[in-house]
Amino acid sequence: MTEPTRHDTRLDRFVDNYSERTNGMRVSAVRALFAVANRPEIVSLAGGMPNIADLPLPDIAESMAEMVRTRGTQIMQYGSGQGEPEFREQILDVMALEGITAHPDDVVVTAGSQQGLDLVTRIFCNPGDVVLAESPSYVGALGTFLSYQAEVVHVPCDDDGLNPTALRETIARVQAEGKRIKFLYTIPNFNNPSGVTQPLHRRREVLEVCRAGGVLVVEDNPYGLLALDADPVPAMRSLDDEVIYLGSFSKTFAPGFRVGWVLAPHAVREKLTLAQESATLCPPVFSQFAIGNYLRNHDWKGQVDVFRDMYRDRRDAMLSTLHETMPAGTSWTQPAGGFFVWVTLPEGLDAQAMLPRGVNARVAFVPGSAFYADGQGARNVRLSFCFPPAERIQLGVKRFADVVRRELEVMATFGVHTSPIEPRMPAGPAPDLS
Amino acid sequence: MTEPTRHDTRLDRFVDNYSERTNGMRVSAVRALFAVANRPEIVSLAGGMPNIADLPLPDIAESMAEMVRTRGTQIMQYGSGQGEPEFREQILDVMALEGITAHPDDVVVTAGSQQGLDLVTRIFCNPGDVVLAESPSYVGALGTFLSYQAEVVHVPCDDDGLNPTALRETIARVQAEGKRIKFLYTIPNFNNPSGVTQPLHRRREVLEVCRAGGVLVVEDNPYGLLALDADPVPAMRSLDDEVIYLGSFSKTFAPGFRVGWVLAPHAVREKLTLAQESATLCPPVFSQFAIGNYLRNHDWKGQVDVFRDMYRDRRDAMLSTLHETMPAGTSWTQPAGGFFVWVTLPEGLDAQAMLPRGVNARVAFVPGSAFYADGQGARNVRLSFCFPPAERIQLGVKRFADVVRRELEVMATFGVHTSPIEPRMPAGPAPDLS
Repeated sequence: MTEPTRHDTRLDRFVDNYSERTNGMRVSAVRALFAVANRPEIVSLAGGMPNIADLPLPDIAESMAEMVRTRGTQIMQYGSGQGEPEFREQILDVMALEGITAHPDDVVVTAGSQQGLDLVTRIFCNPGDVVLAESPSYVGALGTFLSYQAEVVHVPCDDDGLNPTALRETIARVQAEGKRIKFLYTIPNFNNPSGVTQPLHRRREVLEVCRAGGVLVVEDNPYGLLALDADPVPAMRSLDDEVIYLGSFSKTFAPGFRVGWVLAPHAVREKLTLAQESATLCPPVFSQFAIGNYLRNHDWKGQVDVFRDMYRDRRDAMLSTLHETMPAGTSWTQPAGGFFVWVTLPEGLDAQAMLPRGVNARVAFVPGSAFYADGQGARNVRLSFCFPPAERIQLGVKRFADVVRRELEVMATFGVHTSPIEPRMPAGPAPDLS
Repeated sequence: MTEPTRHDTRLDRFVDNYSERTNGMRVSAVRALFAVANRPEIVSLAGGMPNIADLPLPDIAESMAEMVRTRGTQIMQYGSGQGEPEFREQILDVMALEGITAHPDDVVVTAGSQQGLDLVTRIFCNPGDVVLAESPSYVGALGTFLSYQAEVVHVPCDDDGLNPTALRETIARVQAEGKRIKFLYTIPNFNNPSGVTQPLHRRREVLEVCRAGGVLVVEDNPYGLLALDADPVPAMRSLDDEVIYLGSFSKTFAPGFRVGWVLAPHAVREKLTLAQESATLCPPVFSQFAIGNYLRNHDWKGQVDVFRDMYRDRRDAMLSTLHETMPAGTSWTQPAGGFFVWVTLPEGLDAQAMLPRGVNARVAFVPGSAFYADGQGARNVRLSFCFPPAERIQLGVKRFADVVRRELEVMATFGVHTSPIEPRMPAGPAPDLS
């Protein structure tokens, strides 16, 4: 071990050297609180980490070892910039479960579907271009769009997701302003953070409005197979071959391999591959073979059913505890799958200001404003039911309800919500906002 | 398996939708030839793939399986956007071998060092900014700089690498033109493609010139530990804490895990981490633990010595065969390590035009123009000695010498070189130009 050095490099001597896009990158305001949220006494309803404890680790270990012994020099070597051909075939089988028919040539493997978002934005967005997104939308996608200096315009949603009338009006308004809309970004299944799902008729309407407006659709579907009440709704890509589709193994297998994919029309796929070669030469090769091996040698569909049963218990625990404990004037969504419930607090409350008090009460959550690029969401909170066990979820929701109740009492007494009390925040790892 | 579909998506309906940077991305002119070069009858002196056949696969398989069994839920989960803390400590031990002292907080793990290049360019370069690079320089880096619409300006080099006088003059000239130089990109050890190494005194001179000109230095060092004749020269980063250093496990262990790193001053590191979170959420977690496990449980330094012995044999086979077979008027570098020899052909020859004839003669190489952003390199060829065994290298160099000799005969007869004869080029995987 070498001797640590600390010099004077904390002063940013390079502040005048950065690109314009870098000046738009900001440390999340809630990052420090997430470090606190990792303390064991705190129930975190904040993160989006899947619970992978049920994976058959001894079996996976054995088949992976066999693969390393027999194919080690291939699976540890450089690979294709587009992703391994045999693995792209397997990805087709996964997408077929949601009604998608495609050709392996049109799949580009990515370092997690976050990199899919990055590459799609890279090939389409100039600074000042507009990306349409749901209200609310995935914080990690918003960050990527902003890092390419795109402008995010939120489209109003209802209980069935994107509102087609509002979508049509938004497209017309933005285009009338002379701005260029590059694509609509949507999570039609169990939206992160809202938990809302677009039914089939709504998907058709959204596609029709986008087609009429000349707007590409980017469908992000990390949770699609985690339907908890019924079979998955057919993917938007299954209804329209020109939809750009983002898939992921992070929730149906494990996120640590960092493998997702983009299915795109052939011409777009060619650009994505060039962008991928420039970004990484090739996506993680060992990871692709490891997942391919898992899909081939294990009952991965049965494992998804195990995950669904586990998440259903947790979702039900969260919804029933919300029902039992939340004060009047609070509402929340009823997700049919995925990881998240979206809470709307009584008028006058401020979720961001409540977060430090939540942490003091040993419960963490994500304030809703994180999921908007335009300052909306002050009264909203994302609660996730994916990682803690059901009893912990019940405990966390009770603590959360207590915090809301105390906020309401303070507001009733003083007429306004209090200023935030900042807990001590140690430095820590990046938040898991996925 | 789903039924393949092929529709009409090969016509690029999206041609007006792409970003400006995408229009600068081009398919390599030699990509199709590389697909041909993978045919077994062809000796490929083109690729940069390391030879990893000597890795102790059964031992790696066993220790990896043990890791999956005992730490599976951690190593398959999301991780830190900056990279795993325990792994960043191990990276310090690797860098210490080249004289670098640093703090683990200042390391950012990347999806291969190609992603390090991508993130460094992302945080520093606006369109039109200038990046200085060696003449010649790594093709993958040039592609990344151009994909961010930076302008690459090559700095003349001599047998000790970057020429300090030329560097000073180039900086002054570019700055006088009102352009902003964001950094100098250099591979001081066994340069790809030239094979040239900067001696210690030259490193100090280059750093001094850059300091005086206010130019950041980005040191890319994938081959540093593959010194074949002597111990490594101290890294530039060991001489100056403000150098941004790119490291890689692709050549000292295996490329398929896609793990590299950037060591940067603290303020820059913070920006890189934000960029990494936007690009991938976190670099490949399983890969980091797999390499950490390898470093901990195997004699990795002994394995590097095995690699050095193997590459020394191959380099010596290439250099002695070049000496025995190449026609007069041809010259080449004498690399003290790494993977590459840089050949300068007799005046009048055109390496790009020769490539199809080389492939017809069953030898593949990379024409020198790939390693310049400005059209230089027509008379140059990169030959790599990393992947084929020594006998194949000897055979390949002999074939190459025959091709050059025939070119010279044609030129002597007709006075000019002939137009290229294009062989049939099937579609195939991306080239390995790493």
